[in-house]
Amino acid sequence: MRDDLQGLFSPQSVALYGIPRGLKPGKVFLLGLLDQGFEGPIHLIHPSAKEIDGHSTYKDLDAVPNGVDLVIVMSPKETVFSALAECARKRVKAVILYTSGFSELGGDSGRADEERMKAMAREGGFRILGPNCMGVFSPGSRIAPFPGMPKTPGSLGFISQSGSLVNLFVNLCSAKGLAFSHVLSTGNGADLELADLLAWMGRDEKTRLICTYCEGVRDPAGLIAALRETTRDKPVIMWKVGLTASGARAAASHTGALTGEERLWRSLFRQFHIMDVYDIEEMCDLAMAFSCMAPQGTGRVAIISGPGGPAVSASDAVERCGLSMAELSGETVAALRKVIPPTGTSPANPVDVGLGAAFEVGLYREALAIVLADPGVDAVLMLGGGASEDMSAVYVQDLIRAQRGTDKHIIAIAYPGFVQIDQAHLLKPLHDSGMAVFPTPERALKAYARMIAHYRLQPVPA
Amino acid sequence: MRDDLQGLFSPQSVALYGIPRGLKPGKVFLLGLLDQGFEGPIHLIHPSAKEIDGHSTYKDLDAVPNGVDLVIVMSPKETVFSALAECARKRVKAVILYTSGFSELGGDSGRADEERMKAMAREGGFRILGPNCMGVFSPGSRIAPFPGMPKTPGSLGFISQSGSLVNLFVNLCSAKGLAFSHVLSTGNGADLELADLLAWMGRDEKTRLICTYCEGVRDPAGLIAALRETTRDKPVIMWKVGLTASGARAAASHTGALTGEERLWRSLFRQFHIMDVYDIEEMCDLAMAFSCMAPQGTGRVAIISGPGGPAVSASDAVERCGLSMAELSGETVAALRKVIPPTGTSPANPVDVGLGAAFEVGLYREALAIVLADPGVDAVLMLGGGASEDMSAVYVQDLIRAQRGTDKHIIAIAYPGFVQIDQAHLLKPLHDSGMAVFPTPERALKAYARMIAHYRLQPVPA
Repeated sequence: MRDDLQGLFSPQSVALYGIPRGLKPGKVFLLGLLDQGFEGPIHLIHPSAKEIDGHSTYKDLDAVPNGVDLVIVMSPKETVFSALAECARKRVKAVILYTSGFSELGGDSGRADEERMKAMAREGGFRILGPNCMGVFSPGSRIAPFPGMPKTPGSLGFISQSGSLVNLFVNLCSAKGLAFSHVLSTGNGADLELADLLAWMGRDEKTRLICTYCEGVRDPAGLIAALRETTRDKPVIMWKVGLTASGARAAASHTGALTGEERLWRSLFRQFHIMDVYDIEEMCDLAMAFSCMAPQGTGRVAIISGPGGPAVSASDAVERCGLSMAELSGETVAALRKVIPPTGTSPANPVDVGLGAAFEVGLYREALAIVLADPGVDAVLMLGGGASEDMSAVYVQDLIRAQRGTDKHIIAIAYPGFVQIDQAHLLKPLHDSGMAVFPTPERALKAYARMIAHYRLQPVPA
Repeated sequence: MRDDLQGLFSPQSVALYGIPRGLKPGKVFLLGLLDQGFEGPIHLIHPSAKEIDGHSTYKDLDAVPNGVDLVIVMSPKETVFSALAECARKRVKAVILYTSGFSELGGDSGRADEERMKAMAREGGFRILGPNCMGVFSPGSRIAPFPGMPKTPGSLGFISQSGSLVNLFVNLCSAKGLAFSHVLSTGNGADLELADLLAWMGRDEKTRLICTYCEGVRDPAGLIAALRETTRDKPVIMWKVGLTASGARAAASHTGALTGEERLWRSLFRQFHIMDVYDIEEMCDLAMAFSCMAPQGTGRVAIISGPGGPAVSASDAVERCGLSMAELSGETVAALRKVIPPTGTSPANPVDVGLGAAFEVGLYREALAIVLADPGVDAVLMLGGGASEDMSAVYVQDLIRAQRGTDKHIIAIAYPGFVQIDQAHLLKPLHDSGMAVFPTPERALKAYARMIAHYRLQPVPA
């Protein structure tokens, strides 16, 4: 069945055409498989060389003694069609075409070549990803298009027309503790494109949230059908580029994409509750919110802060994002009054525990426990840290312990310039615990508000 | 002369009331002065203790044998007025009141106390910063309200109503190579407030750009006069908070500020070409653009990128920000075609040097030289890096060398997830060279566009 993309996402064996000698760009595909510890056989295909950097080769795919699920082609453009013919004879399941020089060059011949590839795939019973793509990253299947990618599987899916963003977005997210189910780049999308992969990820049990980077699609009707099906069950985040004239020209020479009209895309976003984003940081923020917070509550936010200034701006952001400042009960305020110092602080929301809390981080812990117990609070935004690394380490552990004891959301802010919290070794335990962590309250609240709004419009099926 | 704030910004001697024993919040003022290596005498005042952590004390200010320029008060609220009376007798020049518990508590008595402070200051011929403030950071005068602040003076001024933001914003900016002339927090602003300090920084020769964080002002007419004077010569960036009902309540309990109506503030921003910002990241981005780029050209941007996806999004951002994509000349395109590989690349703007450039960073250098030579280009946004740290180090040095040889702007992007460029030891040489560096093209272009637009509206005086 051609809709079954198991050959792409979890192949049992791989063959590679055109692996270069030495450290050249095309080498990353082999290095990626070796780095992930791919467990099946890896066959290198080369018409003349007997070995490449110590790996033995076959002169063509026919010469490989056993079956092959996935073929990755990075050999020159002129060799692509004969390689595809071999793939058909070998009855492979999927082909990743890294080779470029087709529709992204403009003109009719590239487009015609891609139509021919698609026809060969349909006839041969396999699917093609690309050309001009970087392929698949599936840590659960131990395949990756780059070395050094994370090895832990997760629940985040990413469909990217751009190959480099596969690497960049995965690195960015995994540094923040987010892990991926399947990631792939579609490149020119001659055969498989956004619609096919959305539909597949929509059905994939491991994937809970789908991020996409899209330049253009060839089959708008297919996309609409896929969105209708997929967005019913899973949130879809879309970074749609090429919507200005300059961006459209750039996309055409990048992946040969026809980017489409902004008005039409915006109506798709509205119709299917797709969250559109403007840049990689916004996409990562939303991935964090959806991955680390459950859809519950109505967005009543309490803020607990040592620094007063960022807490005032955060209060503005709560309101501007359509969330509400939690009204703390009289009991909560009275309890806070007992633990925080009398001056330079405030027991109302935003709760200002004072700059002194940096020297006595237990104040944060006590204030957090009191605020979490208030039934009028859905989420607590924590903007704090210690005056020394040791104190900050205690603060971090207090947050993690508090999150384990509650269903409410704790949103941790690693404020830029707040030296002690900003550092990797303090952030890592927070990330590893699955807590939502953002650099600023403004970014955190925007992402949280969109998550809350999304589930109000698009309730999770029972 | 009461407008002369030299006593505040470059005191010859300092006295401190209420320094605590051990590591408590109030200790930071003494630690800050010692850490900066303040060269004048530092006198500790305490009514009974003969010494504090090894530093000898005076029982009151009258007992200090010599003159005192600046007095910093962190003793309890009840002692503030007698301390101010001593300051008047001693004919000090300026007083920083860290002590809190006045108008920010709400009610009439705090406001009345502040009026009384102001009257005492006027009568005593000194100025008061605060109460409820963190005071002054002036690295050129070796004074700081926190230990660990940078020691190198620069040209960036920052007036912050919030004390904690002094620390946070300075840390954030100095990690990016930006250095400050004078920074201060005004707290409740009983005497000195935004207007006074804006006017002073406007006249200060060391300050070239003024950032402000403002909750509210007491003297709107004074602010308008100060803005009229200051914004004629220097760009003013303003993070105005408390413009929502939630933010206004938070500001009231933070610094007792009356935050004002959004509509009125927005008209001030327009009238005086003030750049308003939404959060600390946006303020830092603008500080970077104004500090590292000269006001020249009309914003014709060329993009040189290895990763294709971010370059497409960057092209969108160029247009959305009101900049224009530089039209490269035929000669430029022909020259680019000679140096970049034939496939997976593009010699038009955005110039895609291909993913292979990560393995051959000289491609970036050559492409940059060709594009900089095109008279139709004002700025080149560089989105690249090497496949290894060594290659990235070469890439960084190539950018620095290219910037030294041109008056055009090179805008370096340290893209998140682009492991090799994202790291501190590779970023530092870029920052130290004075180059504009941003995390994403979208943020870079927004800041650059606002800088260009600002100087179009508000030309630099001849």
